[in-house]
Amino acid sequence: MNVTILGCGLIGASWAALFSAVGRHRVRAWDPSATARAAFAEKVARAEQQLVELGAEAGEPVGVFEHLEEALWGAEWVQENAPEKTELKAQLFSHVESVITRDCIIASSTSSFTWSQLAGDLKHSDRFVIAHPFNPPHLVPLVELYSPNAATLEAAVKFFSDVGRVPVCMKKEATGHIGNRLASALWREAVHIVADGIASVEDVDRVLIHGPGLRWSVIGTHLGYHLGGGDGGIDHYLRHLGPSQERRWSTLGNPKLNEEACRKISAGVHEEARGREVPQLEQQRDRQLMAILKLRREHPTIDE
Amino acid sequence: MNVTILGCGLIGASWAALFSAVGRHRVRAWDPSATARAAFAEKVARAEQQLVELGAEAGEPVGVFEHLEEALWGAEWVQENAPEKTELKAQLFSHVESVITRDCIIASSTSSFTWSQLAGDLKHSDRFVIAHPFNPPHLVPLVELYSPNAATLEAAVKFFSDVGRVPVCMKKEATGHIGNRLASALWREAVHIVADGIASVEDVDRVLIHGPGLRWSVIGTHLGYHLGGGDGGIDHYLRHLGPSQERRWSTLGNPKLNEEACRKISAGVHEEARGREVPQLEQQRDRQLMAILKLRREHPTIDE
Repeated sequence: MNVTILGCGLIGASWAALFSAVGRHRVRAWDPSATARAAFAEKVARAEQQLVELGAEAGEPVGVFEHLEEALWGAEWVQENAPEKTELKAQLFSHVESVITRDCIIASSTSSFTWSQLAGDLKHSDRFVIAHPFNPPHLVPLVELYSPNAATLEAAVKFFSDVGRVPVCMKKEATGHIGNRLASALWREAVHIVADGIASVEDVDRVLIHGPGLRWSVIGTHLGYHLGGGDGGIDHYLRHLGPSQERRWSTLGNPKLNEEACRKISAGVHEEARGREVPQLEQQRDRQLMAILKLRREHPTIDE
Repeated sequence: MNVTILGCGLIGASWAALFSAVGRHRVRAWDPSATARAAFAEKVARAEQQLVELGAEAGEPVGVFEHLEEALWGAEWVQENAPEKTELKAQLFSHVESVITRDCIIASSTSSFTWSQLAGDLKHSDRFVIAHPFNPPHLVPLVELYSPNAATLEAAVKFFSDVGRVPVCMKKEATGHIGNRLASALWREAVHIVADGIASVEDVDRVLIHGPGLRWSVIGTHLGYHLGGGDGGIDHYLRHLGPSQERRWSTLGNPKLNEEACRKISAGVHEEARGREVPQLEQQRDRQLMAILKLRREHPTIDE
């Protein structure tokens, strides 16, 4: 398939490597910024190297273009990763639709906007689909999909399944889709715990890695409470422990990201980083992600 | 060390196996229920078998006693895992303190109560420490600790580190400690997503396993946003994306576990289980947990 990546940042580069190496697609990319275009090839190469370590073969080189028309040559799939500004995306979609053929799908990696907030900017919104990944998209399998058009949604499920992703279709759209709503809810309490002085930034993160986060990489929250209910499962849990969950919900925090909270979070994160720069931390994260992805081949996840 | 387990349920059995096989402690257990005592040995054996697979050697057999005095013979550490009822725990602590020596520590696995809510029931509360594990405690490394007594806290850090756990000390107590506050905050939104018809129970769980949960097993929520801020890190994130997080917080749900919500959750969980009974699901969870624990030896977590 001819795939066009719009936006050569981290997400665009990660998609490009995945679509090329795992999808065997012919990938072209576009970015209006010369700096972004210049840095793109190295980012793609780094992601592709990780995919090769996971067993993929290097794909065809990804072309990167200054002119949108060239990047869209023969496009059958467009993956948009432009900055999260509606006007900018609207202009871009209008330009793209004036070039592509009628059957080309436009997928947006947007994390901030819903389908309805963007679809109005398209002439043919039936070909438009939200396809939101988790960073880094070439390693984290989840892609959240939403489109009211069944054929487009089906095409998106196939497209992302074919590149080894785990597509999840939303039945109804929501700000933050699913994963970032869960992540926001968790972070709100994590900020509260730090702001309230219950634990340090580093200790909250340590709790996740060695406790609930570890478990959520293996079993989801709902099925987890099914196991927490013992022999009676989720029904026992809801009946006997539901009320104590509701009581705990009423004690959860509602922090503001004011100056003091931000200062505490920032200081705590820098302490936790212990002098490691962002690229080094990314590398450590990716090493572990890749190791887990490898073991999942031998130990299928509980939903398979 | 002579360790006494109070309560022969799943948590008690899991602790007994860990303390015996990994800690090389002499472990005695007590439960007033004959049924619980009868089922105990098999539960311990199952957990111990998993620890042996992870490289431990089988420990000395764990004795299980009907009379508290016998179980407390020579006790230097008491781990309480009784049902979450204050009066019951108060009675138990009083009985225990009348038998043990002054320097024996009493640790409680309680998930519902804080230190202050239980310490009043002890004659010598300076020896009392909250030591809350995540299920199953012999596999999930996190233990949340709280005691206002520095020496007791230090002893607890040593005790749990010596059995391969990751102890995290709270600076201030809170209902649900740290991990269950995070888990409750996340589940509240997960219940909302199902109740509101955004996604199915199974899809919410799938999102976690293949998205944020996978990532939180590798990198915590705070440090994750540091990487989400690009070159500017957490400071860039807080300045530029903090406001959009606050906006998203304002859209999060506040569901009630009413009859309709419970019916939806229950039906969704049973669908997700696809006929698998709780023990089978536990086994699948444990297989994956053990595989991840093994790979962490080669790929240390980001906090190490």
